Amino acid sequence: MRSIRVELGERSYPIYIGNGALDQAALFAAHIKGRQVAVVTNDVVAPLYLERLCQALSGFSITPIILPDGEVHKDWQTLQLVFDALLGARHDRKTTLIALGGGVIGDMTGFAAACYQRGVDFIQVPTTLLSQVDSSVGGKTGINHPLGKNMIGAFYQPRAVVIDIDTLRTLPSRELSAGLAEVIKYGLIHDQEFLGWLEQYIDRLLALDAAALLEAIERSCVIKAEVVAADEREGGIRAILNLGHTFGHAIETHMGYGSWLHGEAVAAGTVMALEMSRRLGWLAERDRDRGIRLLHRAGLPVAPPAEMTPEDFSRHMAVDKKVLDGKLRLVLLRRLGDAVVTGDFAPEALAGTFATDFAALKHQVCA
Amino acid sequence: MRSIRVELGERSYPIYIGNGALDQAALFAAHIKGRQVAVVTNDVVAPLYLERLCQALSGFSITPIILPDGEVHKDWQTLQLVFDALLGARHDRKTTLIALGGGVIGDMTGFAAACYQRGVDFIQVPTTLLSQVDSSVGGKTGINHPLGKNMIGAFYQPRAVVIDIDTLRTLPSRELSAGLAEVIKYGLIHDQEFLGWLEQYIDRLLALDAAALLEAIERSCVIKAEVVAADEREGGIRAILNLGHTFGHAIETHMGYGSWLHGEAVAAGTVMALEMSRRLGWLAERDRDRGIRLLHRAGLPVAPPAEMTPEDFSRHMAVDKKVLDGKLRLVLLRRLGDAVVTGDFAPEALAGTFATDFAALKHQVCA
Repeated sequence: MRSIRVELGERSYPIYIGNGALDQAALFAAHIKGRQVAVVTNDVVAPLYLERLCQALSGFSITPIILPDGEVHKDWQTLQLVFDALLGARHDRKTTLIALGGGVIGDMTGFAAACYQRGVDFIQVPTTLLSQVDSSVGGKTGINHPLGKNMIGAFYQPRAVVIDIDTLRTLPSRELSAGLAEVIKYGLIHDQEFLGWLEQYIDRLLALDAAALLEAIERSCVIKAEVVAADEREGGIRAILNLGHTFGHAIETHMGYGSWLHGEAVAAGTVMALEMSRRLGWLAERDRDRGIRLLHRAGLPVAPPAEMTPEDFSRHMAVDKKVLDGKLRLVLLRRLGDAVVTGDFAPEALAGTFATDFAALKHQVCA
Repeated sequence: MRSIRVELGERSYPIYIGNGALDQAALFAAHIKGRQVAVVTNDVVAPLYLERLCQALSGFSITPIILPDGEVHKDWQTLQLVFDALLGARHDRKTTLIALGGGVIGDMTGFAAACYQRGVDFIQVPTTLLSQVDSSVGGKTGINHPLGKNMIGAFYQPRAVVIDIDTLRTLPSRELSAGLAEVIKYGLIHDQEFLGWLEQYIDRLLALDAAALLEAIERSCVIKAEVVAADEREGGIRAILNLGHTFGHAIETHMGYGSWLHGEAVAAGTVMALEMSRRLGWLAERDRDRGIRLLHRAGLPVAPPAEMTPEDFSRHMAVDKKVLDGKLRLVLLRRLGDAVVTGDFAPEALAGTFATDFAALKHQVCA
């Protein structure tokens, strides 16, 4: 069992990573202050892991709350089901919510914990690679609004994160790849050496090699924890974690939540950010191509949907949370391992990126 | 113009109290960091004060958001209208929400600010006595749930509170009385000398004497600010501010939100708390009667609805936020000016309170 500490003063918390973590009752008990526990999960994860988790929590009074699966349900109506169940079972302010599932379950459970009786404890038990390396670390919680993704939410930290890497054995390969998009992102924005390691180990990760997974997850969490500790509420540096996300959110919004996986949209968005960084003269063409090739080898899309026009991107990106005083800010790379957040770029570089034939670029780079 | 500072470290903020505060542009401008402002109000307050406030904010880009009036609309559906308007007008993370109205508008706007893009600034401009002395100070925000009042919300502090006491001239007298319930509460829980002052000045307050109002509002805000500064997230002492509220919430829930005003329910609930404190041998009968008489003189109900049974109270109070590990805690008085929060009382005292004939008690005390 490995353990990382996210340093956030009185809101600091540990991340436990290991095989079989789900069965280790003590990991949970140390972070539950009352008698009541609500396990929030979905109808895909529940049959796989709910019973095992409930066994580890056998000393507590447990309310299981099973939501419908999918990003399309990351809305107020579904969140309301959590509040209904908590109030129906009379959970008080000392209750602890446990999020058992992927990023959607984690984001919704965290936001429910932030709002229920003005704030109760919660623990993250992420069961997808994406949520293990990204959404369970850092305290961003929330739901979608018809006019924008993650527009309603809170910064709210868990008491602990328990990552059982065995849960990845039941994860569809498409979702494993989606998680790798965020892992690769950490290399691109912050750690060129890790990027080299990923180029070497990408096939073992896809084959679920336990040692490789443990290493990749731990290094990803360490990078994210470092960045979050430096800037909890995203006043500055934390925004670099959103490499590819502004382009990616536009793809998700345009295609309808749930059609492209978040990690898939981020992968295509990252390629767009790499291309734009190259157009600004910051990133060498061969480095852009290293990024594209690695994402492609990880089983990810490296071009946005053919049907999306430059106008579609402009329109969707105008409501991004990184827009300040009407000015769009983007995460771009000065070089591999070094990201910046900036609104200070030539508009032609953005327009040129929107107009790029990414399908042709993929063909050229990944052939 | 008087000014009080609520001391909460980096979340500290000023409360400005005076005649004509609504027109003083500089009071607002000092606490607005971007260009965008959204004024959230309701269809009763908007015709009275929206245009004046917009004039004071003439340097900013203003989105007015007018909600239906009333506690019955303090729900997610109405909150959603705020998010729809903010996203529709592309408000970014540097926007400032301004709550112009009573407690419902303040609670909903504060919660909207807490959640919109995971947190933006807001300013309270309370236009009712209740919201001026209570809900605009302390950072409690939220909405109701069909199974309980204020069950969904956040602790979220405003950047400033601007109280224009002239707005009380358009307040219905029933709502003025409802506000006095909270003013009297401050005397009962914390300041016996203020209680004596209120017994002397209650008629001038009802007659809207400006000097008396300024004094009563300032002293109430000072007491609340002190208690909140000592315990922002209600881990302990802050709960004394809820004198009469647990009984009162049961009345509001039972009668349906909006049938009894919050202050009216608190007044009747306070009488129940006074009676229970007497039954425990803590409060002298003559002190209980002083409280009842003052509430009655302020135009407030001093008995719960005749139709509510002891079972109704038991059932509704079981989901109160002050229930911990299944144990009901109540705010009671050890003597006038000295409140405690305790779950340590004889159950017979609570049962006896539920069974008391408060209509007869009123007749006896206020005759």
